[in-house]
Amino acid sequence: MEYKVGVISGDGIGPEIVTEAKKVLDQIGKTYGHVFRYEEILMGGCSIDATGEPLTDAAIASAKASDAVLMGSIGGNTSTSPWYQLPPEKRPEAGLLKLRKALNLFANLRPAYLYEELKAACPLRDDIIGDGFDMMIMRELTGGLYFGARKTEEVDGVLTATDTLTYNENEIRRIAKRGFDIAMKRRKKVTSVDKANVLDSSRLWRKIVEEVAQDYPEVTYEHMLVDNCAMQLVKDPKQFDVILTENMFGDILSDEASMVTGSIGMLSSASLNDTKFGLYEPSGGSAPDIAGKGIANPIATILSAAMMLRYSFDLDREADVVEQAVKQVLQDGYRTIDIMPQEKPQEKVTQVGTAQMGDLICERI
Amino acid sequence: MEYKVGVISGDGIGPEIVTEAKKVLDQIGKTYGHVFRYEEILMGGCSIDATGEPLTDAAIASAKASDAVLMGSIGGNTSTSPWYQLPPEKRPEAGLLKLRKALNLFANLRPAYLYEELKAACPLRDDIIGDGFDMMIMRELTGGLYFGARKTEEVDGVLTATDTLTYNENEIRRIAKRGFDIAMKRRKKVTSVDKANVLDSSRLWRKIVEEVAQDYPEVTYEHMLVDNCAMQLVKDPKQFDVILTENMFGDILSDEASMVTGSIGMLSSASLNDTKFGLYEPSGGSAPDIAGKGIANPIATILSAAMMLRYSFDLDREADVVEQAVKQVLQDGYRTIDIMPQEKPQEKVTQVGTAQMGDLICERI
Ligand SMILES: CC(C)[C@H](C(=O)O)[C@@H](O)C(=O)O
Ligand SMILES: CC(C)[C@H](C(=O)O)[C@@H](O)C(=O)O
Repeated sequence: MEYKVGVISGDGIGPEIVTEAKKVLDQIGKTYGHVFRYEEILMGGCSIDATGEPLTDAAIASAKASDAVLMGSIGGNTSTSPWYQLPPEKRPEAGLLKLRKALNLFANLRPAYLYEELKAACPLRDDIIGDGFDMMIMRELTGGLYFGARKTEEVDGVLTATDTLTYNENEIRRIAKRGFDIAMKRRKKVTSVDKANVLDSSRLWRKIVEEVAQDYPEVTYEHMLVDNCAMQLVKDPKQFDVILTENMFGDILSDEASMVTGSIGMLSSASLNDTKFGLYEPSGGSAPDIAGKGIANPIATILSAAMMLRYSFDLDREADVVEQAVKQVLQDGYRTIDIMPQEKPQEKVTQVGTAQMGDLICERI
Repeated sequence: MEYKVGVISGDGIGPEIVTEAKKVLDQIGKTYGHVFRYEEILMGGCSIDATGEPLTDAAIASAKASDAVLMGSIGGNTSTSPWYQLPPEKRPEAGLLKLRKALNLFANLRPAYLYEELKAACPLRDDIIGDGFDMMIMRELTGGLYFGARKTEEVDGVLTATDTLTYNENEIRRIAKRGFDIAMKRRKKVTSVDKANVLDSSRLWRKIVEEVAQDYPEVTYEHMLVDNCAMQLVKDPKQFDVILTENMFGDILSDEASMVTGSIGMLSSASLNDTKFGLYEPSGGSAPDIAGKGIANPIATILSAAMMLRYSFDLDREADVVEQAVKQVLQDGYRTIDIMPQEKPQEKVTQVGTAQMGDLICERI
């Protein structure tokens, strides 16, 4: 079959890591008889440079016309890049927020797990790591503080800024269902995170999650306050299966969880809407400091492409093959610089660059 | 001199740990010639049971009439306690929020540091811990989402909940000044945390912090996004001196930071207003599961009393003496159960209960 893949290479290391993910997709295509047609879509800093806007209507239209979108990363150095002299709504990241909203990508899935081979990179003590951990953060992505009304104005001569956090029951219900659905395919546990002792939106969140939970009698669920969750992620990440939460809490907790694994360069993410369409991107940033050096880790992007195969194209077998190839390459001792062991001796591992890592994964497909 | 100390023993382990802190204060009084007069103030679950309200106007009035307030902890088990059947504004925690607002306690100081003696309890790897870390979280405590307008209503038949996040420049300026003032007494570094790539309130926050920073040329400062900060606390807590942030981010990050130390039972906090007045409380919760067993760790409360001596009564020497006594007791090998080493052999340490720990600290004053 033929699939139309919108490609947002973006800024920083984006183009390099996306090139490797396309290489892997093409290898899958050759082996299993699929064709992936790529269409480059401008977003972020490169779009600002070309069009003055971080995301044009034409770019949104081509994203919509794709079967799925694969993204590298966007944005630059916030203190030195001229992009950050622009007003907020003209900056690179505004393009991403606009795209999420325009495509209604309300469900953000961010897996965070420990790779056995990369255990040494985990910042936690060995006895806390134990046999490892494997969580899925399910973050609501099109509501809350990110998309509420905001204003900055003088009130009696005093500068005052306001943001608004709104959720309605439908927004909560659809993401909660996604969370419980995913839990059914995993270890059947949902931890719903909120701040119900303070926020009305959290109390509504809790109420609707309770309702949705009734339809999933096999799933164990619990409520946890966001401050406690931030502690538990460090104290005992093993306790979590699916973490279900709203947009801002999800932003904070998913980043904390990925750092707890110690291998953010390995972590993919998917942003889905109500159809099969999705936007797939690595969890890490655009890393402008190492851009163009050919040393960035392409694995998170390659695993994001695997998520695309699975969630948007229903190519489960092909997704498995990519994930296996990544595991194999790690077992064979290949590492990009970010996941090189810190301690000597390092005889058992070989440091490779971005393109070589892509090639090694292709060879194993 | 004579000091009027309002005492909120509260719920759970609150009364037990506060008893030990009073014991230590009295020992200081005896040794250095001060008198501490205590007045018990009802707040939280015990106040609900006695008056139907988590905090009465009379209680607020006696807090206001005190020179400072020492607090244990409030609240109970949220799934089993009848207090949590009440509407949100009648629950134990609502009392605390009301008190913060009524006393204008806008500056919440939460130290998070590693005790050399308790290094083994730190969840992080040894090479990340290094020589240890020592941060002060300066959290704004009377603004933002905690105190903005909120409502839950039907909009076209759909339940919709809204919370509001507002800050004005004056609220930001006064907490920023406190943050920089504290940094001047420490390692002269401020990390201001916000989400300026999304929120108007964060952009105003950043602008005012920039302005305040101009008055502190000796202090190095940086801005950090909240998601990044949640990562950095796990990756490299050593980089932080003072973390300055708004109410909700501060709630999440300060709890994460205390868990990163591994010894939350050791961590104190102070909530200050524009005068010398302050509310002092341990960072941990009311731990209803171990209440009444005489095993709770009173050290965080004792150290909170030391903060009270320092910040509200200007008794720096006396505060030092308490802190030294705590260090000494740890060096002498005494531990409550929460800070007992997990690994054998445990010969070098002696497990003690709540009251015994208080006595041991008094002996060293
Ligand atoms: C770039 C930024 C607006 C974005 C967010 O906060 O959602 C990023 O941190 C993320 O998590 O994808
Ligand atoms: C009890 C709760 C309302 C409170 C808060 O969120 O401020 C607590 O978590 C704290 O940090 O003191």
